[in-house]
Amino acid sequence: MESVAELQKFCGEIIPLDQAVLARAQARLDNLTKPRGSLGKLEMLAAKTCAMRGTLAAKVDKKVILTFAGDHGVVAEGISAFPQEVTPQMVYNFLAGGAGVNVLARHVGAEVRVIDVGVAVPLAVEGLLARKVRLGTENMTKGPAMTEADALAAIKVGIEVAQQAIADGAEILGTGDMGIGNTTPSAALFAALLPAAPAEITGRGTGIDDETLARKIAVVAKALAVNSDKLATPLGALAAVGGLEIGGICGAILAAAHQRTPIVVDGFISSAAALVAIKLAPNVLDYCFFSHMSAEQGHRLFFEKMGLAPLLHLDLRLGEGTGAALSMGLVDAGLKIMNEMATFGEAGVSEAE
Amino acid sequence: MESVAELQKFCGEIIPLDQAVLARAQARLDNLTKPRGSLGKLEMLAAKTCAMRGTLAAKVDKKVILTFAGDHGVVAEGISAFPQEVTPQMVYNFLAGGAGVNVLARHVGAEVRVIDVGVAVPLAVEGLLARKVRLGTENMTKGPAMTEADALAAIKVGIEVAQQAIADGAEILGTGDMGIGNTTPSAALFAALLPAAPAEITGRGTGIDDETLARKIAVVAKALAVNSDKLATPLGALAAVGGLEIGGICGAILAAAHQRTPIVVDGFISSAAALVAIKLAPNVLDYCFFSHMSAEQGHRLFFEKMGLAPLLHLDLRLGEGTGAALSMGLVDAGLKIMNEMATFGEAGVSEAE
Repeated sequence: MESVAELQKFCGEIIPLDQAVLARAQARLDNLTKPRGSLGKLEMLAAKTCAMRGTLAAKVDKKVILTFAGDHGVVAEGISAFPQEVTPQMVYNFLAGGAGVNVLARHVGAEVRVIDVGVAVPLAVEGLLARKVRLGTENMTKGPAMTEADALAAIKVGIEVAQQAIADGAEILGTGDMGIGNTTPSAALFAALLPAAPAEITGRGTGIDDETLARKIAVVAKALAVNSDKLATPLGALAAVGGLEIGGICGAILAAAHQRTPIVVDGFISSAAALVAIKLAPNVLDYCFFSHMSAEQGHRLFFEKMGLAPLLHLDLRLGEGTGAALSMGLVDAGLKIMNEMATFGEAGVSEAE
Repeated sequence: MESVAELQKFCGEIIPLDQAVLARAQARLDNLTKPRGSLGKLEMLAAKTCAMRGTLAAKVDKKVILTFAGDHGVVAEGISAFPQEVTPQMVYNFLAGGAGVNVLARHVGAEVRVIDVGVAVPLAVEGLLARKVRLGTENMTKGPAMTEADALAAIKVGIEVAQQAIADGAEILGTGDMGIGNTTPSAALFAALLPAAPAEITGRGTGIDDETLARKIAVVAKALAVNSDKLATPLGALAAVGGLEIGGICGAILAAAHQRTPIVVDGFISSAAALVAIKLAPNVLDYCFFSHMSAEQGHRLFFEKMGLAPLLHLDLRLGEGTGAALSMGLVDAGLKIMNEMATFGEAGVSEAE
């Protein structure tokens, strides 16, 4: 993935769901001892996963969450409740198993892999996937956050770690993010690509007050204005007003779809990355499950404008992959329904009249 | 529980949540390495469970789903897509482990106990809790579905099997139902107790057509009219337009609250039973988690009128305890967050500025 042309070729190789397998999976579900469709979205998860994998025997026993970390020059504008040093501190917390994503990943039987795509300080710690593209981004209110070459490199990191996870046996992937300030570039990406107005897409992130929110909205607007000549393409927007971990997540989504593997998109930041991936390759939508409606206000607008529905409504706003972990458990539940429930014939249960 | 007076005494012994433990639990959650409140409803589940149990060390490792089965004389009015013989057929399916609730209970590590409170045919099968009060109810469009003594007996069954489950070590209970036709008495109970108009609370159940839906609405209205002199008390309403499995679920909810044990209320039918329990003892609300917003149309009205919010929005409409099973997993996840996440101090992570 050394050029935009190579990326475009990769994106072009992503194929839509196998509709024949989708129909066979739904037929199997309709023959189980329950009213048709009565397990709602669990049935959708099962049928779509089978259609992705091309088999009714799809499983998601091996689950891997890819949590990408990166820093943001725009924190200089005072848009976050937490200091930038928290990004590397949380990377250490992930690797020690003490963060929210670790707990929820263990709960559903998933492995967490942590990738440094662009934390602003050097990191060397056992277990970290050290794939730093650069030491954080530039302040996007003064020019592009990074070059298109850097954005492409971040996408490449995401593609490669996702491909490695799949090579290691992962049957489902989840996305996660860590990056102090990263609701700000995510809001800017939504604003540029949905599109949306900064005031309607920008929210309180980790918990900022009214004054800081007003500044954050102004920062998003300024970043869009300063970089207005660079927002015409998804890669241009990612480079100008995005982030390195967002690029990594975008790459992971592309790679999952390319290898017909389900990927659960976490919250607001991951959805911004998914939007870049969808703009690069619309077929990736067939392979994405959106885990939850974030409490971050702009997330609802993303779902509305895209005509999508998330799985969970639990007021989560942590990121890291926490929502992805919970939703991976639902995909598992859906496939177990498909594989373990008795049919009407097997159980001797009468069908609807 | 031989008299209404005894039931009232039992209900009066149900105490509200321990607010001091609730505050201590939230303080513990606020000290974990995440922005305050950022795990949304998972935090609420953890804090409330601790407050129920009176300890920050609350666990829900042992989970039991109580699935109550009963039949309904009102099926003679042609209000269901499935024939009544499906009730006992599904009881056998539950005991063989092939139904939806079995699969989802295994998924979350829960045991399913199946109770015959009032299936219309004699049942004798290994593993069934045989607590039949009577062979189904009467047709409620021609008079009361059962006597108040029968309704009280059904509640007593629910109380006793829930108490037994707790005595066996259950730390969380879930409710479930099986009874062909039982969205009809549930709609009638909501209509009587919320209250609501039959047309707004009555839905398609397992999947009836427009003509049958119109008949079902008329049946609910007729049952309310015929029994109008019996709907002034929750027990009277349960007897006149309710059902035996609904009474059992109501009793299980009362017993869980009485023993300060969380209980996850499944869907539309279980919510009708919960409404009877709430009317008998308002404090039970403190011990109930509502698992999901059913695809059955009237469920939304219940939540709106009661000012409650369910956990999941997965378009489930199967009953049996399937939604309760999935939500038990969320309670577990919330408590693991509480017990396994690192604090800011432990992880060396900086707090918000």
